[in-house]
Amino acid sequence: MKKVDHIAIAVSDLEKAKKTFKKLGFSFEETHEVSAMKVETAFAKIGESHIELITPTSKDSTVKKFLQKKGEGIHHICFEVTNIEASIQKMKEKGFQPIYDKPQKGAQGLVTFLHPKETHGVLVELIQRGFGEREHNHE
Amino acid sequence: MKKVDHIAIAVSDLEKAKKTFKKLGFSFEETHEVSAMKVETAFAKIGESHIELITPTSKDSTVKKFLQKKGEGIHHICFEVTNIEASIQKMKEKGFQPIYDKPQKGAQGLVTFLHPKETHGVLVELIQRGFGEREHNHE
Repeated sequence: MKKVDHIAIAVSDLEKAKKTFKKLGFSFEETHEVSAMKVETAFAKIGESHIELITPTSKDSTVKKFLQKKGEGIHHICFEVTNIEASIQKMKEKGFQPIYDKPQKGAQGLVTFLHPKETHGVLVELIQRGFGEREHNHE
Repeated sequence: MKKVDHIAIAVSDLEKAKKTFKKLGFSFEETHEVSAMKVETAFAKIGESHIELITPTSKDSTVKKFLQKKGEGIHHICFEVTNIEASIQKMKEKGFQPIYDKPQKGAQGLVTFLHPKETHGVLVELIQRGFGEREHNHE
């Protein structure tokens, strides 16, 4: 684990939430739609990390279900790793069951998740930034 | 806001949770009791930030109530600021109502909190690390 990549906060109104966090001094990058996850997101840099505001664009988005069940709040934490395939392998050896056994392409790199039931209620995302050719290079 | 200081995770069994996060590669510092908050905590460094595991030591700890209501999971995020008095002042000008109007002494510095109802369900802590003489030095 290299660093906290981002902390994602589920919100019901992205523009309203951006306004709140701007008042606290955060500057947001452009809003992006991540159609695979049926969400819109906006990132704001803080130190070596980011906060990510995330809002559903469809009723069947998992983030919509999260909001209905729990209300607004922290949705997941993402840690950056050097080599996601090696990390998945190591986690499996330790008895974890990563949600994606093969890393998935996210907007900014290759990702997988650990289910909150394995990590004390915390949805953990792991990201290897970029899409480098690491298939034969397990660090 | 300088950086993410730490992400605090409320857990019901500190030793068990430490074991889980150790398996993911985290190394914990010594466990400390924070008697004012009726909790025990253990920090693990990641990049410029830390994760903090936090567990109640008494039935009337607010963390105990959190666990009863929501179960294990992320309890708060803490951001580091340079001058907490200036930050409190700025937040009040922007319409926020910090929980401590005067910064309180925490284990590692001067702190205040923003209530989740003001910040989209996120309990936000602000910390000015150390206990420097900043009373007459509003940066």
